[in-house]
Amino acid sequence: MSQTDTDPEAAVDGEVDVDFGEDGLVPAIAQDAEDGEVLMLAYVSPEALERTRETGEAHYYSRSREEIWRKGGSSGHTQSVHEIRVDCDADTLLYLVDQSVGACHTGHRSCFYRTVEGERVGEQVFDPDEVY
Amino acid sequence: MSQTDTDPEAAVDGEVDVDFGEDGLVPAIAQDAEDGEVLMLAYVSPEALERTRETGEAHYYSRSREEIWRKGGSSGHTQSVHEIRVDCDADTLLYLVDQSVGACHTGHRSCFYRTVEGERVGEQVFDPDEVY
Repeated sequence: MSQTDTDPEAAVDGEVDVDFGEDGLVPAIAQDAEDGEVLMLAYVSPEALERTRETGEAHYYSRSREEIWRKGGSSGHTQSVHEIRVDCDADTLLYLVDQSVGACHTGHRSCFYRTVEGERVGEQVFDPDEVY
Repeated sequence: MSQTDTDPEAAVDGEVDVDFGEDGLVPAIAQDAEDGEVLMLAYVSPEALERTRETGEAHYYSRSREEIWRKGGSSGHTQSVHEIRVDCDADTLLYLVDQSVGACHTGHRSCFYRTVEGERVGEQVFDPDEVY
């Protein structure tokens, strides 16, 4: 059997031991499970990951406020998590989510709404002044 | 005019000042520009970003080796960068890329080839023993 085929024996290798590193956090990318849009990146502690898995709602850890937060806690724009993936080094997560309204506090659907040249490429879906 | 419409006056706000933070690095997500698959996450220094923009080939900064590396330098599996986006806080990048063969050193197309439960969900596209 070619090694480029999927090995059925290896289809499930068991729970992945996430490497939270020195600061106890890993970056987590939130991606729209439906259309694949990358919505945001935030950080996750072991407890934030645990709460995400328990509740099915995306939780992150705020490095500035030093606390766990539930996405959409103030805006109502929650993320229902369909699947959690881990990268090869087990030090980055990928949340596949169903995003309510928009992920970004600026009112855009995605936090990545502009290019490095400053061109606006993302869609604004709500008025932040009416939400926050 | 509704604030949820795109303001043509704001369509280009000028070069974004990326916030490289205390350690001088930002995470960069590489996403397939064609099918939207999230391929990998790595870190980028100001110089790595500069080289990426100059050459159109993805460059990153290795925290373990403490040096800039060009994606595909040893494997040949380069990333041609179509667009670079910045998030709302300007502390995360999104590279939209054309990925040659596969992004992951394990032979998978994406580094996010398994769930946190250990289920293999990603496609293996090359044999790492033949490439490295």
